[in-house]
Amino acid sequence: MKHPYLMTPGPSPLAPQVKMALGRDIIHHRTDEFRNILKEVNSGLKYIFQTENPVLTFASSGTGAMEAAVSNFLCLQDKVLAVSGGKFGERWAEICRAYNLDVSVLEVEWGKSPDLEDIKEILDKNKDIKAVYTTLCETSTATVYDIEGIAGIVSNYPAILVVDAISGLGSDVLRTDEWGVDVVVSGSQKGFMLPPGLAFMSVSKKALSLAAKASLPKYYFDVQKSLKSYEKNDTPYTPAVSLITALKESLDLIKQESIEVRWKEFSRIARALRLSLEEMGLAVFSSSPSSAVTAASLEGAKAVVAKLRKEYGLSIAAGQGKVADKIIRIAHMGYINAQDVAAALFLLEEALKKTGYKIKQGAALKKFQEEYYV
Amino acid sequence: MKHPYLMTPGPSPLAPQVKMALGRDIIHHRTDEFRNILKEVNSGLKYIFQTENPVLTFASSGTGAMEAAVSNFLCLQDKVLAVSGGKFGERWAEICRAYNLDVSVLEVEWGKSPDLEDIKEILDKNKDIKAVYTTLCETSTATVYDIEGIAGIVSNYPAILVVDAISGLGSDVLRTDEWGVDVVVSGSQKGFMLPPGLAFMSVSKKALSLAAKASLPKYYFDVQKSLKSYEKNDTPYTPAVSLITALKESLDLIKQESIEVRWKEFSRIARALRLSLEEMGLAVFSSSPSSAVTAASLEGAKAVVAKLRKEYGLSIAAGQGKVADKIIRIAHMGYINAQDVAAALFLLEEALKKTGYKIKQGAALKKFQEEYYV
Repeated sequence: MKHPYLMTPGPSPLAPQVKMALGRDIIHHRTDEFRNILKEVNSGLKYIFQTENPVLTFASSGTGAMEAAVSNFLCLQDKVLAVSGGKFGERWAEICRAYNLDVSVLEVEWGKSPDLEDIKEILDKNKDIKAVYTTLCETSTATVYDIEGIAGIVSNYPAILVVDAISGLGSDVLRTDEWGVDVVVSGSQKGFMLPPGLAFMSVSKKALSLAAKASLPKYYFDVQKSLKSYEKNDTPYTPAVSLITALKESLDLIKQESIEVRWKEFSRIARALRLSLEEMGLAVFSSSPSSAVTAASLEGAKAVVAKLRKEYGLSIAAGQGKVADKIIRIAHMGYINAQDVAAALFLLEEALKKTGYKIKQGAALKKFQEEYYV
Repeated sequence: MKHPYLMTPGPSPLAPQVKMALGRDIIHHRTDEFRNILKEVNSGLKYIFQTENPVLTFASSGTGAMEAAVSNFLCLQDKVLAVSGGKFGERWAEICRAYNLDVSVLEVEWGKSPDLEDIKEILDKNKDIKAVYTTLCETSTATVYDIEGIAGIVSNYPAILVVDAISGLGSDVLRTDEWGVDVVVSGSQKGFMLPPGLAFMSVSKKALSLAAKASLPKYYFDVQKSLKSYEKNDTPYTPAVSLITALKESLDLIKQESIEVRWKEFSRIARALRLSLEEMGLAVFSSSPSSAVTAASLEGAKAVVAKLRKEYGLSIAAGQGKVADKIIRIAHMGYINAQDVAAALFLLEEALKKTGYKIKQGAALKKFQEEYYV
């Protein structure tokens, strides 16, 4: 009997309160009962997003909200900048191309945070860039981008700054309003301890002024239409009722602990994990490591990940795209805590040994304990 | 302690097996375990849709799949026909306009099925119409359209036929391949006994040949990209894992009973309900009544619906759009059965009496029993 451990960077494990909410009878969405839930959820989302801007909820994967963050703010042939240092940065560029925008791509080395000077240079040369698309945690490389620094630059230009915080939100620090981020996109299956199926999007006044002029076609993800419903704690189309009811539970859990405490805790876990992996003999992949997920270089990663899942019941992830077989990724987000990471190290070390990797035996767990309880 | 009865035309009640599946731990989606679930789900959907065409699943409300059925098959300024006799027919026209298509709207009297000759005439005059958009059950008026008849006409023209079967599927007869329907769209929260959050879309070869040439922008709802993943029992973006796992349970339930048996059963319930409402003194609103939902004319419907919900725990629906306060609607779809309808009649009659409506007392339930057990 294997005891399944889910430590992939999405979906991440469900909180027990979430599971119980999902198993309840469904209620109708055009009722005061549901509008009251939406009201609380909308307020809770503002807190997690650290913003006074509205945070819209869509029934979709995070990618749907990424598309909404393109189609709602732009016109055909508008100039945009996509910062791309991994699979999800590439996705921004892909979506912008699907809408026939004039896309400049800043290619960032995988595993590194973008060079702020590069962004400044592109914006200086292209003052007519309407939007800059970037990422809080580039999940594919476990790299956190310096959003505060990027926002500090972009705010000097007419462009809006759009951040994909799908995997990072709740683990990596993001101060939307304080830093001046216009649009933040996220999803339910990472920091929120929920199944996939909800996407979120905060929208600043600067972004809304673009929305009023944007001519790209959209319907289901129409921000202006959604906002009209949002103001009445309603939705334009049938919402994912069960997921939203469960979201209320997870938001309550996060508020109880406070987002600041959680940021510190995930940072503490991530730091101890990095030191432990190094102690084991593995190199941390990113030079700007995220607090939501940690990547270590490992040639033949896929086979190790498959073995861990099949023989040990532990789900971590290999890489994606060009580093698919070159890194392993261990998530620490949502309902994953320090003892889960300890369990993962316990199993990972054994699986690596059995697969013939030369690693230092027994050192990682000791190191993790020392560094976590520092 | 009120005992809540949910008999609105979506969301409809969850099957117990669905609730249990939703409350389980989540699994990762890029695994054989999940691909096996998707394989079974894909096969079950073909059965419910009565098609050999692929049936794609999106994480979204039904409206998302409606949009996909526009953006994937057409180019800017293409001519289309939207058949509109209620709120959901209007939605087809709205989506087509949002994409700057050249939309002809066939206005159908609310509560009636479209006149087949009208459709033929429009297609004769506009041989370059690329797509005809219509509805199986127009939920807002509880009216079933003669899709077999419409398909018989459209199949003589180059246009594809696209049917919104969001509320009708599973209750109203729909023989996709036999009738020659190209694209059928549905959602999870009606006949599937699931929460909202999944949308489905079957796609014929004729529709796929349009998709290859279509230039309207899309990304999240890209049919061609989704099909590539579909063929590997995979999805291009993170699927709504919990809902899909629960869908497997509901498909198993439907298959066990058979779709033919369910069509007959809902038709039998709907017929008995109509006769009972008439016995009570209420007129059935539609001249082509659906087997998924029944509407009766009632001035001041909203107050009665509110009273039923608040005082009796029964959720039925008032109208939408221009008949918002003029009809009540009682759903019989998914997990709703004959005894639920009996309970609804029991409460409805009492609420009408208390509100001062002059209705024949005690007759409806007797009639329902006689006609159901005919």
